[in-house]
Amino acid sequence: MFFQIESSCPRTGARTGLLNTPHGSIRTPVFMPLATQGSVKALDPGDLKAIGAAMLLGNAYHLYLRPGMEVIRTFGGLHRFMGWEGPLLTDSGGFQVFSLGHMRRVSDEGVLFRSHIDGSEHFLTPELSIEIQETLGADIIMAFDECAPFEADPPAIREAMERTHRWAERSLRRHTRNDQALFGIVQGGTSAELRTESAEILKAMDFPGYAIGGLSVGEPKGLMYAISKHTAAMLPPDKPRYLMGVGSPEDLVECISHGIDMFDCALPTRTARNGGLLTPKGRINIRNARFKNEEGPVDPDCDCYTCRTFSAAYVHHLFRCEELLAYRLTTIHNLRFVIRLMDRIRAAITDGTFPEFKEHFMATYRPTDEEVRSTQKRKWREGREDRESEEDEWRA
Amino acid sequence: MFFQIESSCPRTGARTGLLNTPHGSIRTPVFMPLATQGSVKALDPGDLKAIGAAMLLGNAYHLYLRPGMEVIRTFGGLHRFMGWEGPLLTDSGGFQVFSLGHMRRVSDEGVLFRSHIDGSEHFLTPELSIEIQETLGADIIMAFDECAPFEADPPAIREAMERTHRWAERSLRRHTRNDQALFGIVQGGTSAELRTESAEILKAMDFPGYAIGGLSVGEPKGLMYAISKHTAAMLPPDKPRYLMGVGSPEDLVECISHGIDMFDCALPTRTARNGGLLTPKGRINIRNARFKNEEGPVDPDCDCYTCRTFSAAYVHHLFRCEELLAYRLTTIHNLRFVIRLMDRIRAAITDGTFPEFKEHFMATYRPTDEEVRSTQKRKWREGREDRESEEDEWRA
Repeated sequence: MFFQIESSCPRTGARTGLLNTPHGSIRTPVFMPLATQGSVKALDPGDLKAIGAAMLLGNAYHLYLRPGMEVIRTFGGLHRFMGWEGPLLTDSGGFQVFSLGHMRRVSDEGVLFRSHIDGSEHFLTPELSIEIQETLGADIIMAFDECAPFEADPPAIREAMERTHRWAERSLRRHTRNDQALFGIVQGGTSAELRTESAEILKAMDFPGYAIGGLSVGEPKGLMYAISKHTAAMLPPDKPRYLMGVGSPEDLVECISHGIDMFDCALPTRTARNGGLLTPKGRINIRNARFKNEEGPVDPDCDCYTCRTFSAAYVHHLFRCEELLAYRLTTIHNLRFVIRLMDRIRAAITDGTFPEFKEHFMATYRPTDEEVRSTQKRKWREGREDRESEEDEWRA
Repeated sequence: MFFQIESSCPRTGARTGLLNTPHGSIRTPVFMPLATQGSVKALDPGDLKAIGAAMLLGNAYHLYLRPGMEVIRTFGGLHRFMGWEGPLLTDSGGFQVFSLGHMRRVSDEGVLFRSHIDGSEHFLTPELSIEIQETLGADIIMAFDECAPFEADPPAIREAMERTHRWAERSLRRHTRNDQALFGIVQGGTSAELRTESAEILKAMDFPGYAIGGLSVGEPKGLMYAISKHTAAMLPPDKPRYLMGVGSPEDLVECISHGIDMFDCALPTRTARNGGLLTPKGRINIRNARFKNEEGPVDPDCDCYTCRTFSAAYVHHLFRCEELLAYRLTTIHNLRFVIRLMDRIRAAITDGTFPEFKEHFMATYRPTDEEVRSTQKRKWREGREDRESEEDEWRA
């Protein structure tokens, strides 16, 4: 059995479950750190085990360009290449072709684009995306989709959605490995009507799991929540639901209450590399002078390696000096924060106290609203989480 | 007893010894990784323990500017601030003031300079350097010295040397902590006569250990060896001898045969961050396309974490993608290579087979001569190992 629901919140849509994959079982809701290019930025597999990461997310677009499928085949897949024995999910590359590729020409057949790395020309189709993902060998793979920008007009959003449905069918047809679960991706922008239509059409194709794509690309947070809630409710209750690209702490708590089971997001890791550290009260910036002489850890309640071992003053110093260790220590902290938050959420759902947990969390955690919104607004144009794979983003 | 010689090579000047410090005993000859700003670039204390690092080197100039002595005092010294419980040595800042500081005005009193970080003005004297180093609390500290550039004319080299002697006396007078060993630094450029004079004068001051400064600043390798050998022979045989800023594998083997006991050098760590990896046959560049599909480790004979865990192809990929993990994995490898080399050298000296070891090593290890020389030539102007603390050097 691929997915089993273990408990449900009687007062919200939240539920806990078990996702069974060839590389192990994962408790849901789950947050998946990004290993876009086969490495969670600044961490090694030992760090990831230590912080309790259950499942990582690789990317077909990036890994197809570098190191390329010949290398991945030599290693029999991404797991052995990157030294990660746990479950993996790969994204189809659809989002990245549109956000990172240059000189795109989109047709029903596929997308002609130039690599963001060397300008080389490639033609990505649903069939090729699935072939790449079969070579990568992740436990869960994604249908090839077209994600319309937030600014797109209604006809363009419909066109991208309908193409996504045709590509979903082709992805399904091409998929042969029965040790991989292929998920469909719901599109439809911020229109509840289109989301309903998209969910219905994809449900009929009977995927083992469903993702909600095309959110967190610049729309206001309230609208993202509304569409996430609406779409989650349209999806089969017995199958896992994956909200793509979402994952600030407050978004996780909110969207779990809609019945979302899986998340990925660059926010905790990218923010960490910019000195933004997650704490129970909200995000702090470790570069701030108030940490210069702070003997205590970044967060006294945190059990991560960084907080157990180093003072906030030392982490502050490493950041001020741009020492490479800084990025590893803060990434460990932020991922541990998010993973522990997920642990607590699952415990609260199981105990039947999730609504109280959510209320308490929302009352004590101060989201960095303005920042998040303006960042998200820039996200689409700048290429969302994939920008982080480019040369200088980690310094930005 | 601070230093005990344990065995001596009957056919060369090489010897093994034990250096006893308040934070533990170290076997010599020893290679000290640089923790210039309180962090060995890209590594954490656990990594350093795992690779067998015995003693680290901090820097008074850098730590005085950042985080500043107020912060270090809060932590009772550098050990607790950086989370390193083993022995530490700090350099006096003399070399850095001359290589990194701007708008220097040197007088007998001290050096007026502007910080390379923010342009703020500071006046560093032998007394202040010792005060800083007492606050840092390293087990071994260095006298404040003036290191003349390789290009300096003979009168300027003599002047810097004589000033170094006066500053050595003032450093001695100012030094109060008897749990720290203060080393004198021999100067005198590439003149054997000046080196003899400098060694004699400093010997009369009876330091517990002696460093050879002002080498590896652009002079040809053969000249560096000649002066190292000449100067080592002038120093008291019962006290530790430290050759500053030297540490390519072939330099270590050669200079140990002169009777040098201690080394520090940015080469293994900086080279690592540029993709240069040390192997028994010489340096390889992991960016090279021949590693693209290499399933085996970087060096099949290496026992480091990187070689035990990852393929050369994966390390190559991380470099090509500029993933942060790359710099940690290659730094671990290179430091482990150098530390194991020192282990083998000590064993060979103890066994009485050091000359054969040296011959075999020199016959199999291909030094990257041209590169080293041209790099060293640039070193002085660019600020030698300290450049690595500046913003972009690690990418260079």
